[in-house]
Amino acid sequence: MSTPSNGESSRKLLAVLRDRGPLPMTHLSEYRGVSRSKLGQEVAALGRLGLVVSGGQAPSTGGRPSNIVSLSSDVCYAGIEIGATSIAVGVTDGYLDVLDFVEEDADVHDGPDVVLDRAIELIHELIVRRPVSTLVGVGVGVPGPVSFRDGRLVGAPLQMPGWERYPIRDRLSRELNVPVTVDNDVNAMALGEAHAGAARGTDDFMYVKLGTGVGSAIVANGALFRGADGCAGEISHNRVAGAQSLCSCGRTGCLNSEFGGAALTRQAIVAAQSRESPVLARLLEENGTLTPLDVGVASAAGDAYATQMIRRGGRLVGEVLANLINVLNPSRIVVGGGLLGLGPLLLAEIKSAALQASTPLATTHLSIVQTALGDRAGVIGAAWLASETLIDTLSGATESRVEQSA
Amino acid sequence: MSTPSNGESSRKLLAVLRDRGPLPMTHLSEYRGVSRSKLGQEVAALGRLGLVVSGGQAPSTGGRPSNIVSLSSDVCYAGIEIGATSIAVGVTDGYLDVLDFVEEDADVHDGPDVVLDRAIELIHELIVRRPVSTLVGVGVGVPGPVSFRDGRLVGAPLQMPGWERYPIRDRLSRELNVPVTVDNDVNAMALGEAHAGAARGTDDFMYVKLGTGVGSAIVANGALFRGADGCAGEISHNRVAGAQSLCSCGRTGCLNSEFGGAALTRQAIVAAQSRESPVLARLLEENGTLTPLDVGVASAAGDAYATQMIRRGGRLVGEVLANLINVLNPSRIVVGGGLLGLGPLLLAEIKSAALQASTPLATTHLSIVQTALGDRAGVIGAAWLASETLIDTLSGATESRVEQSA
Repeated sequence: MSTPSNGESSRKLLAVLRDRGPLPMTHLSEYRGVSRSKLGQEVAALGRLGLVVSGGQAPSTGGRPSNIVSLSSDVCYAGIEIGATSIAVGVTDGYLDVLDFVEEDADVHDGPDVVLDRAIELIHELIVRRPVSTLVGVGVGVPGPVSFRDGRLVGAPLQMPGWERYPIRDRLSRELNVPVTVDNDVNAMALGEAHAGAARGTDDFMYVKLGTGVGSAIVANGALFRGADGCAGEISHNRVAGAQSLCSCGRTGCLNSEFGGAALTRQAIVAAQSRESPVLARLLEENGTLTPLDVGVASAAGDAYATQMIRRGGRLVGEVLANLINVLNPSRIVVGGGLLGLGPLLLAEIKSAALQASTPLATTHLSIVQTALGDRAGVIGAAWLASETLIDTLSGATESRVEQSA
Repeated sequence: MSTPSNGESSRKLLAVLRDRGPLPMTHLSEYRGVSRSKLGQEVAALGRLGLVVSGGQAPSTGGRPSNIVSLSSDVCYAGIEIGATSIAVGVTDGYLDVLDFVEEDADVHDGPDVVLDRAIELIHELIVRRPVSTLVGVGVGVPGPVSFRDGRLVGAPLQMPGWERYPIRDRLSRELNVPVTVDNDVNAMALGEAHAGAARGTDDFMYVKLGTGVGSAIVANGALFRGADGCAGEISHNRVAGAQSLCSCGRTGCLNSEFGGAALTRQAIVAAQSRESPVLARLLEENGTLTPLDVGVASAAGDAYATQMIRRGGRLVGEVLANLINVLNPSRIVVGGGLLGLGPLLLAEIKSAALQASTPLATTHLSIVQTALGDRAGVIGAAWLASETLIDTLSGATESRVEQSA
């Protein structure tokens, strides 16, 4: 008779190897809390599936030598990160170390067919370079609320025509012939940082992405928190004090309309045209346009107004985070996204405002740090999602094999 | 050899009975996904521990008749809810139905020795009335941030002298000679509503308590979210727009200084003394003092100023909740606490403001409802915590017995 515990066993073994790297049988046996013979069966079953290899010997520590168990080097995952204006694809090994990575401009306005076709092309290009590898799963991060169960965007932003309920997972899965897992892009970044970045080892953290908009993801009790409609982590429509700008949602004073790449560009153009910022005025004349990072360039050139823009943005983000620190009491907040390119002042101001406006108890163990994975966080997190799906699927398959051989 | 799955089995069986009530063996076998013979072993082992009884027969549905498995009626739990100004104690059966309940005034200012002595007395008084019952666990809710692992308050509010790090769990456990589990009072209320009240069947919800202060608890992915320092759910120091009142924390414009029982009393006295509220002025003259609920009395008597006070309080709570709805995307918010006695206007205003200021997607599946358990939510939730602790402990014990008899 089949019991849930055997599937859980294989699952745990694969996850331990992915998260801790190759391990001697003796250590694995301890981590798993099972006997050597039971573990041997699990390793053999996963070996027959081509997932795990056992060989080489760990240095003896007094007892009998122990074989080292590794994930097969033939197995690889792909992670796709679709941003509002870019697409990134990475191929990783079973430990989710990135073997190959490409990023290029893209526009979600072009619709899912165009963008996903390009993602498939990029995956094929990367895989062709690795003839011995077998792609066993793909993860995708997309810039909007996701129905995780359906692998689709639900409540897609207005600037993403054609994406609402488009079957992203099913389309990619059909064309790539592997299981595909779809999640929100910021959720994927959080998972990447949890696996290999600045959130490693923490069970309660937030990831905050400062990009075209400002988004966040919440990990609570060690698990991603998606919410009832898949839109947990949405902070861009939280209110900021004393702000009256009109937001795309039709209300006033949202964080989104006051800070983020889009808001900063608008503010920079106004500051240039009014000549309040002499450096931005010059950059606008020279380039005919302004980007959010031009504000950082102007600030670095000593433009006080541009520096004030960065300070104000950081303070607003910090004040929104302070309310969430009180309520969620995270042990870490990881900040990532392209706007970190504005310079260290932004993060310093976020930290200062967040700590100033939250309760002392809630910040006892809090650290606010910047991303350790940079623009690869999303791709690594997407690959992590792919590995979870594979592990879930194969645990069932392995279970039957172990049962048959027992 | 012992595997984790057997402990998990007994745990699941006890929890299924607690949460679903007595069940025929056939149904239990389905819920648990184990064979009748395995289930029979588990039931027998739990029977030898005095926890479970099997007897009586379920009406036949065509197959062979099935014994009904129940929790033993000899077993009872106690739940203690310590509030800032009250203490409540309830005794429940194994299904957490309240058998006996007492509530009386108390003052946390008196310190833990006085308050806990009284709690012990009350438990003894209730237990004496039930000579055949055996108390197998006690849960306690206390009004402050709790280190769940240590069973103590950490970062106790200033108005709770002597409670900081006082060994609540160890003291009660020693005197009552049963396992004791301590948690924050609002967390306990949320667990009570999840077990038997307005949050039954939801995995992602918030409980909001409107009392002397305003507090909340968060259940995410089906589990209580306590945060890194045990203070998750703290909303009383979140900022409200356009408020300048000085808060006890030393900052201005916290929800706490604008609304809650304490704030409302201050505001009511000012409104009475300034005669802006004629009815409150009269009540103050008649009674020499005012309570928060006098504002509701005045409102019901047609006092427009008092009605405005309630509207404003509801709007502020709703605006604070809106930011959390965006970020947490809960499927339900349960509102409880003594201030509901102000009348239905308060909850109506909270709902309206919360929905007005949050994103439409985040409220797609959201319902905002009032407590179904009233002042018993905390005691039932505390008893639930006690039952979880018992189940955790006994699963280990039962496991060995099952192993020995197998």
